[in-house]
Amino acid sequence: MSGFKTVKGFRDFFPEECALRNSIFKRWRSVASRHGFVEYEGPSLESTDLLKKKSGDEITQQLFCFTTKGDEEVSMRPEVTPTLARMAAARQRDFPKPLKWFQIGPCYRYERQQRGRLREFYQFNVDILGEASPAADAELVALAIESLRSFALEPGDFIIRLSDRRLWTEFQASYQLNETQSGEFLQIIDKMERTPAEVTNTKLEALGMSLEKVHAFISSISADHPIFAELRENLEARDLWQYVKIDPGIVRGLAYYTGTVFEAFDIKHGLRAIAGGGRYDNLVGHLSDGAVQMPACGFAMGDVVLGELIKATPAAQEQMKRDMDQSVAVDVYVLLADESRRRECLQTVTQLRSAGWRVDYSLTPQKVNKQFQAAENSKARFAAIIGGEYPTVVLKNLATRDQMEVPAANLAEKIAEQMSNPVYKHLLA
Amino acid sequence: MSGFKTVKGFRDFFPEECALRNSIFKRWRSVASRHGFVEYEGPSLESTDLLKKKSGDEITQQLFCFTTKGDEEVSMRPEVTPTLARMAAARQRDFPKPLKWFQIGPCYRYERQQRGRLREFYQFNVDILGEASPAADAELVALAIESLRSFALEPGDFIIRLSDRRLWTEFQASYQLNETQSGEFLQIIDKMERTPAEVTNTKLEALGMSLEKVHAFISSISADHPIFAELRENLEARDLWQYVKIDPGIVRGLAYYTGTVFEAFDIKHGLRAIAGGGRYDNLVGHLSDGAVQMPACGFAMGDVVLGELIKATPAAQEQMKRDMDQSVAVDVYVLLADESRRRECLQTVTQLRSAGWRVDYSLTPQKVNKQFQAAENSKARFAAIIGGEYPTVVLKNLATRDQMEVPAANLAEKIAEQMSNPVYKHLLA
Repeated sequence: MSGFKTVKGFRDFFPEECALRNSIFKRWRSVASRHGFVEYEGPSLESTDLLKKKSGDEITQQLFCFTTKGDEEVSMRPEVTPTLARMAAARQRDFPKPLKWFQIGPCYRYERQQRGRLREFYQFNVDILGEASPAADAELVALAIESLRSFALEPGDFIIRLSDRRLWTEFQASYQLNETQSGEFLQIIDKMERTPAEVTNTKLEALGMSLEKVHAFISSISADHPIFAELRENLEARDLWQYVKIDPGIVRGLAYYTGTVFEAFDIKHGLRAIAGGGRYDNLVGHLSDGAVQMPACGFAMGDVVLGELIKATPAAQEQMKRDMDQSVAVDVYVLLADESRRRECLQTVTQLRSAGWRVDYSLTPQKVNKQFQAAENSKARFAAIIGGEYPTVVLKNLATRDQMEVPAANLAEKIAEQMSNPVYKHLLA
Repeated sequence: MSGFKTVKGFRDFFPEECALRNSIFKRWRSVASRHGFVEYEGPSLESTDLLKKKSGDEITQQLFCFTTKGDEEVSMRPEVTPTLARMAAARQRDFPKPLKWFQIGPCYRYERQQRGRLREFYQFNVDILGEASPAADAELVALAIESLRSFALEPGDFIIRLSDRRLWTEFQASYQLNETQSGEFLQIIDKMERTPAEVTNTKLEALGMSLEKVHAFISSISADHPIFAELRENLEARDLWQYVKIDPGIVRGLAYYTGTVFEAFDIKHGLRAIAGGGRYDNLVGHLSDGAVQMPACGFAMGDVVLGELIKATPAAQEQMKRDMDQSVAVDVYVLLADESRRRECLQTVTQLRSAGWRVDYSLTPQKVNKQFQAAENSKARFAAIIGGEYPTVVLKNLATRDQMEVPAANLAEKIAEQMSNPVYKHLLA
């Protein structure tokens, strides 16, 4: 097509891909609602200054940033947390605490293209604001686990790697690092897993530390460490502790975490992190220049790595296919076997749609076998055939090939009856 | 908050506003599915060249356009039709015709701020590609009407103003206008309603025409005109012709329409058009430099004017409020009256959520009356009170104030029973 292509790192969602995306959204939305979270959304453009204030000047390298015709410096949002902090600080007096809020929408990062990374992707953001208790951290870890379980992922499929930033604060205490060094140190730990040991060790030695001491410290931290006690007790009560592994190597790259941090990883396929989050008690205060102090914790889950994991996991893939079939299939295809009845065909189509059924039909005259083909293409469950016997209509179950004669006026009702009949129940699965 | 504001013309959706937005999306999605359309989505950035090729160079004045770090000239999409044409042309061989596709997502226009206009807004786009018959136009007009009806809008609330571009082709035939003049002429007709008569007349005279002749032509076009015959017959069969008014003054500003054109307007409040669309048989061919020819028609409906109309129409507003309450309310608030039972409280919360109920509870110890207050804030239908009698739980209907004692293990089941009891049915409304 004359050279017009999708912009690099952006996606076209043809109907099947859109159905997959919508199935992910539906499950995210459902699990968040079940956990008592309410949905919000922000704009997809924010002032670049807000994003810089949150993440530092280097963030601009990853931004789709530009100057508007009205001379505003803006960026397509790379994440939603700055927006959330802005919104919560602006209207926090209007809502009882804690805020349990979630959001589903696109984010944009100008990143090098690689597996699991796109420049436009969707995120599920879940946050609790105004509650400092580990009970809030536990509620979020639980929701992260239940989200993944809702995609038919099981204990053997993923793990939550959990840590607490304060462990490293404790470790650093004996080394007298300044703020910059402390930031460097956390970056070293964050990248340790993907970096050769000697490189890590050299960097640590520059800070007066060593890899050996870091390893010894990591080994000393077990699931019994008192810093995890309340979180553990809480998740055990929910029977979800089995999904958690204590891992002090998880620190999260971002500077603003202050306590609990966690990431979700698949177990079998070595994919990038599926989700990540933690506690960030100072961010709202920082972004509001101290005007509003609000403890907070949250996590984000993207659609790209999750989508890869679903495709790689048979049970998850099967459930997703059922969701997709469900969302693209029509219930009834109305076939017109006698063109002189087109008016009655349109009436029947309209009636069935008003009764809530998804209905399609051939817009123009077509041979009956072509119409049956179209019914199959649209994955219709039933065909309603309008012909010379009208107002008697033939209703045919396209899965079982059973058919019955029904008065046109009773068609919607008859379909409802057939759909709820146990024989046909698999159609609704 | 330290001067960080929402970018001009963009919106924050706090939970109530997000619920309203989602209710609009849900009804759009539902009515499109019932009409046998499947959902697609494109990227929010497109190459600026694609948009210029569709709409001409002047479009850039309305674009959020910029150069990426990779030197791509891109724009945030001002509409979805160019994306649809690009996608359909690229993969049209993979889908049986006609394509009945819809899309719901944000669009961006750098426009002067005024009532009913924002710089980020949502659109519902519905198109049929690959079908030249007026039956496709009728299917779309019907869907536009049914969309508005699904918001509890009635015949007295809105009207579809319908015309056909070919009427004006016919009218122009005797004046020998060149292509530029012909475009100018359609612009004059398009703006006639909002322009003083003398101004219009002067412009028409420059083309060798007159306002008098235009008026005479408009008066000569009735609903009986043969150009509307098939569309009318089709919509009459659906009992929807009552929503349509023939109005040759509707031409749609955009150059690419080739046949049927229509716009939906409210009747009582003088708002901007709620929706607009028509037939554009040459666009896919034009954008693909002739590689793919595909007749097409479609319409778009925005969320902003529709939202205003809903707010101004009591029945629509009431239905919307019910939708919103439904989507932000929790089903069950679990109250903990005896803090030594927190473990059991978490178990109960987890059980009820697994059973599909929306459940909230106090993350931290709170006095019972505070917890009842929180239950009300979350619009909970039931309170489940866990105290010293555990495993006996008190289940309280917060609307009727009825209460009953239930074994913890049967709680999910009991709630299902209570919800389906006719006495409680209003809760599900």
